[in-house]
Amino acid sequence: MPDAPPDSPLADALARVGDRWTLLLVGALLDGPRRFNELAEAVHGIAPNVLTDRLRRLQAETLVVEEPYSERPRRVVYELTAPGRELAGALRLLAQWGADTSDRAELPSHAVCGTPLEARWWCPTCEEPVEDADEGLIRV
Amino acid sequence: MPDAPPDSPLADALARVGDRWTLLLVGALLDGPRRFNELAEAVHGIAPNVLTDRLRRLQAETLVVEEPYSERPRRVVYELTAPGRELAGALRLLAQWGADTSDRAELPSHAVCGTPLEARWWCPTCEEPVEDADEGLIRV
Repeated sequence: MPDAPPDSPLADALARVGDRWTLLLVGALLDGPRRFNELAEAVHGIAPNVLTDRLRRLQAETLVVEEPYSERPRRVVYELTAPGRELAGALRLLAQWGADTSDRAELPSHAVCGTPLEARWWCPTCEEPVEDADEGLIRV
Repeated sequence: MPDAPPDSPLADALARVGDRWTLLLVGALLDGPRRFNELAEAVHGIAPNVLTDRLRRLQAETLVVEEPYSERPRRVVYELTAPGRELAGALRLLAQWGADTSDRAELPSHAVCGTPLEARWWCPTCEEPVEDADEGLIRV
């Protein structure tokens, strides 16, 4: 539970998914729907009670839904919703950052020239990138 | 402490910075070097002992360094290293996601025209935004 009301988009995002196991689960589900046991295997080291807890939280945030694939016995797969899938870009950059020292990267690259891409702030009105540190960025 | 050795770039990244307070601290330090009290104020709701702990961990990972600005009494500012600053892109996308999926948080705006900024993939070689992730983005 957050200790204080979120006061920025980043704080708001991290109040909902700012947890190692939660982000690893979302990462595992980006490959497609998974059963509980498949997730336990995909996310190395996660304890079953932690997996249960994080899946419940992700469902409460409507980032994950469960889809039944058998009624007797009842069995479900867990699947990302559209907002859950939209975490893909951030997770890709975190993975890229993690790979910088290990050479195991899956780097998103520009198809035209092969350069690894960066995520920049962009003004859709002026049609130009805006640097964090310069005077072009104000917080509202 | 991680329960298992990291087995992917994402797991490696999250073993080091996969914590809400850690990522909020890095986000606050992207604006420039900050003193302890300034960080306590910038990261709403963080307890002083948690702030101390996360700063120590970030220093152990060499993502943050302390720079003395006074010897008597000894006082320091905390500053991101180059690898710490490289988390900026991932944090921008998380902030974008937080703003897209919540009506409580707003993105930073362009000081020049007031337009809310968007996080875009950017090719630093071609110096252009990559519009369509499906066409412009490849995995290598």
